[in-house]
Amino acid sequence: MTDEFSPALLTDQYGLTMVSAALKDGTAHRRSVFEVFARRLPTGRRYGVAAGQGRLIELIRDFRFTEQEITFLRKAGIVDETTAAWLADYRFTGDIDGYAEGELFFPGSPILTVSGGFAECVVLETLILSVLNHDSAIASAAARMVTAARGRPIIEMGSRRTHEQAAVASARAAYLAGFATTSNLAAGSRYGIPTTGTSAHAFTLLHDDEPAAFASQVAALGKNTTLLVDTYDIAQGIRNAIAVAGPDLRAVRIDSGDLSVLAQHSRELLDSLGATETKIIVSGDMDEYAIATLAAEPVDMYGAGTAVVTGSGAPTAGLVYKLVEVEGRAVVKRSENKATVGGRKTAIRRHKPTGTATEEIVVSQGVPDHQANDRLLQRSYVAAGEIVEAPTLAESRDHLRQCLISIPWEGLKLSAGDPAIPVTVVPTS
Amino acid sequence: MTDEFSPALLTDQYGLTMVSAALKDGTAHRRSVFEVFARRLPTGRRYGVAAGQGRLIELIRDFRFTEQEITFLRKAGIVDETTAAWLADYRFTGDIDGYAEGELFFPGSPILTVSGGFAECVVLETLILSVLNHDSAIASAAARMVTAARGRPIIEMGSRRTHEQAAVASARAAYLAGFATTSNLAAGSRYGIPTTGTSAHAFTLLHDDEPAAFASQVAALGKNTTLLVDTYDIAQGIRNAIAVAGPDLRAVRIDSGDLSVLAQHSRELLDSLGATETKIIVSGDMDEYAIATLAAEPVDMYGAGTAVVTGSGAPTAGLVYKLVEVEGRAVVKRSENKATVGGRKTAIRRHKPTGTATEEIVVSQGVPDHQANDRLLQRSYVAAGEIVEAPTLAESRDHLRQCLISIPWEGLKLSAGDPAIPVTVVPTS
Repeated sequence: MTDEFSPALLTDQYGLTMVSAALKDGTAHRRSVFEVFARRLPTGRRYGVAAGQGRLIELIRDFRFTEQEITFLRKAGIVDETTAAWLADYRFTGDIDGYAEGELFFPGSPILTVSGGFAECVVLETLILSVLNHDSAIASAAARMVTAARGRPIIEMGSRRTHEQAAVASARAAYLAGFATTSNLAAGSRYGIPTTGTSAHAFTLLHDDEPAAFASQVAALGKNTTLLVDTYDIAQGIRNAIAVAGPDLRAVRIDSGDLSVLAQHSRELLDSLGATETKIIVSGDMDEYAIATLAAEPVDMYGAGTAVVTGSGAPTAGLVYKLVEVEGRAVVKRSENKATVGGRKTAIRRHKPTGTATEEIVVSQGVPDHQANDRLLQRSYVAAGEIVEAPTLAESRDHLRQCLISIPWEGLKLSAGDPAIPVTVVPTS
Repeated sequence: MTDEFSPALLTDQYGLTMVSAALKDGTAHRRSVFEVFARRLPTGRRYGVAAGQGRLIELIRDFRFTEQEITFLRKAGIVDETTAAWLADYRFTGDIDGYAEGELFFPGSPILTVSGGFAECVVLETLILSVLNHDSAIASAAARMVTAARGRPIIEMGSRRTHEQAAVASARAAYLAGFATTSNLAAGSRYGIPTTGTSAHAFTLLHDDEPAAFASQVAALGKNTTLLVDTYDIAQGIRNAIAVAGPDLRAVRIDSGDLSVLAQHSRELLDSLGATETKIIVSGDMDEYAIATLAAEPVDMYGAGTAVVTGSGAPTAGLVYKLVEVEGRAVVKRSENKATVGGRKTAIRRHKPTGTATEEIVVSQGVPDHQANDRLLQRSYVAAGEIVEAPTLAESRDHLRQCLISIPWEGLKLSAGDPAIPVTVVPTS
C-alpha cells in the first residue's frame, strides 16, 4: 500500500540538495519564477492537451514532509539539520498560475507558472512534472481518439496495461478528453467518472457452455447488459446471446478478429434475429487509427485500452520546468541552441471573428496587446499559498471540447503535421 | 493524496459484475487456475524481465474492501447485497506461484499462476496485470541499458517523465535490472535503493554567476559532489568547477549537446587541469542505443530518464491473465488462432553443461521430465492465503544478473531478433 506516504518524497534528490546549499548561502529565498512548457510536441502531433492540474493542486496542498520522512533524509545524509528544520515547516506560500485543465498547448506555451522563494518552488519540480507529463500525455492521445470516433462513445479500459495508480489518473485524463466511461472503479470512486463493465472471456469459460454463462449474466445484470460473444464462434455467440436475452439485449462485444468484417456480419445477424436495437461494441488494440478505420462500419461504441494509457506512442508529454526569472531578472540557460526566452510569460490566444484560433502570443515580462477575440490563457490556481477554486472535471471536459472546435480543421487531422497554430514568443524588451 | 484508499478498487468493474453473477449461479467457488503470460515480446526484443512480484504480493496482502468502498459500489449499483457481503469478507485464500522476480521470460512462459475459487481469483486480475505489466516493461528496458553500459554505472533519473507513483516503481524496477542508483527519494525510503542527486541548471541560474553557484554547492556538499557544467559554456564550466573545487572534485555532469565529442573534450580538459580522477557523467535522452554509442568515449557514468521510465518504446509488457483450468478441466478460448494451451503449466529451463540456456519446456497439467542442468522456474509466493517469504530486492537483482549471463550471447544484442531461447509448450496429453 502507498497509504503511509505523503507526496513529499515523490521528488528527485537534487531538489533537496539544492535547498540545502541555497539555505547555506542565503539564496534560498530569492524571488523566483519557474515555468512549465514543452519545447516540442511528440513527432507529428498537432496539439497537446494540458491535463493534471486538478490532481496536482491537491497533491501540492498535501505536500508536507512527515517526521518519518525527515528522519529518513537525515539518516541517509541527504539533508543537514538546517534543511531538516526548513522541511519540517514546509508549506508552499507562493503563487501558481497556468492554463486551464483541458486547454490546448503548443511548443512554448507557458502551461504552468510557479513563483515564490527559490527553495519552496524548486522542491515541487518533480511532482509537478510527473503529474502534468503523465496526465497530458494520456489526454492528448485520448482527444485524438475522441475525434476519430466522430461522436461514438469510447470506454477507457486500459488499467491493466499501466501502473495501478497511473491507471486511475489515465481514466481521469481520458474522461477529460471526452471518453464516455471507464472500467476503473477507483476513478469512479475518487472522481465521479461513470464506470462500466460486464464480463470477460473467463466468465464464459467458467461455465459449462456459453448459453449457461449468458443466462447467468442476464439473470444477475438484466438485459441492459453487454454479452461478450467471441469466446468460441462469434456467429453462434450472437445467436446464443439473443436466444438467452431476447432481441432487446442492450449490446454485444467483440474483442478479437477482423473487427471491420465482424461488425458488418454481426449487424446483419443481429438484425436478422430482430435485435435491431442491440448495440455492437468493439475492443482490442484500438488506437486513433483503428477507430478511424471503423468509421464506416456499424459499430456503436469502442473500448480502448493499451493505446490510451500509454499515450499512443507518446507516453510522456515532454514538459520541462525551468527557472526563468530571479529577483525580477530574466534568466536562461545558454549552452545550447534551445531558443528559450527567459522571464515570466503571459499568453493569449488570438481568434478570427468566426471563433477559429489563429495564433498564440506569449510575451515575456509584459502583457500582450489585447484585441477583440483574444482570450487570456492563464488563471490562478494558488495565490499566496491558498488554493483558488478551479472548474470541475465536467467543466474542464467541456472546455476542451470547445477548444477543439476552435482550432483550424487541419489541426484535428490524425496524420503527422505541424502544430495547429503557431506560438509567437515576444522576448523581454 | 492516495492515502485513504485500499488497493481493492484498482480493479476493472467487470471483475465485480462477474463475481455477482457467479455468486448468484453457484459457480463462484469452482476451483480455477488463472495464468499470466505474454503472447509475444515487444517487436524485436529478445527477452523480457519478470518484475513487480515483490510489490504485487504486498498489495494482495492489503487487498480488502473498506466499508466506504463497498458503500460506493452499492450506491453506484455495481454490486448487490450478496456481493457486498462477500466483498466485505474478502481475503485471498488460494495459491500464487510464479517466476522469481528478475527471471527472464519469453512468449508462453507461465509467469504467474493464481489458483483458488473463481471469484477470489478473478477480482485480482486488474491489479496483478497493472503491477506486472508496468514493472516488467521498465525492468526489460533497463536491463538492455545495463548491458549496453558494459559495467559503467547508470543513474535512474526519470521520475518527472512518468506518473508520480509509477516513478517509484520504475526506480525499483531499474534497480532490479542493475541500475546503480536513483534520483527518486521515495524509492530510497520505501525500498532502500541508493539515491543520488546534486543540482540542476536552475541552481546555477539562481546565483550571480557560475563560480558562485559551484562554490555554494561545494561548501554545502563537499568536493565529493557532481557539478553540472553545461549551463553556459562547457569548457568554461569545467575550468570554473576545478578552480572552485580543486582537482579532486568527484565528478562533472554534461546534460546536453553532442555527448560523444563533449566527453572527449571534457576528459582532455580535466586531465590538463590535473583533475585526472574527476569522473564524467552524461545524461540527456539516454536510451540503450545512445549508451551503446558512447561505449568508446571517456564516460564514467550515465544518467537515464525518459527512456527507462517509458520502457524505451515498449511502455507495457503485454501480459495477459487467462483462465486455463476449471475444476481440473483445461479450458481455452477458441475464437481465434492464438495457439493458447489450457491447463496449469509447469516450466523448466534447460541448460548446456556450460550453463548456457537452450530452451524452456512448459508442460500443461503435468511436470516436465527433469534432466541434469534443468532449473524449475516457479516458486511459491502465496500458499493457502499465506505469504511465503520471498528473496530481497538485492537478491533478485543478483538473480537477473545470473540469468543474463546464462542466455546465448545473441540474446543480449540490442538489434531486433527472435526470443533468445524457444519455449516449447507441451499440451495436455
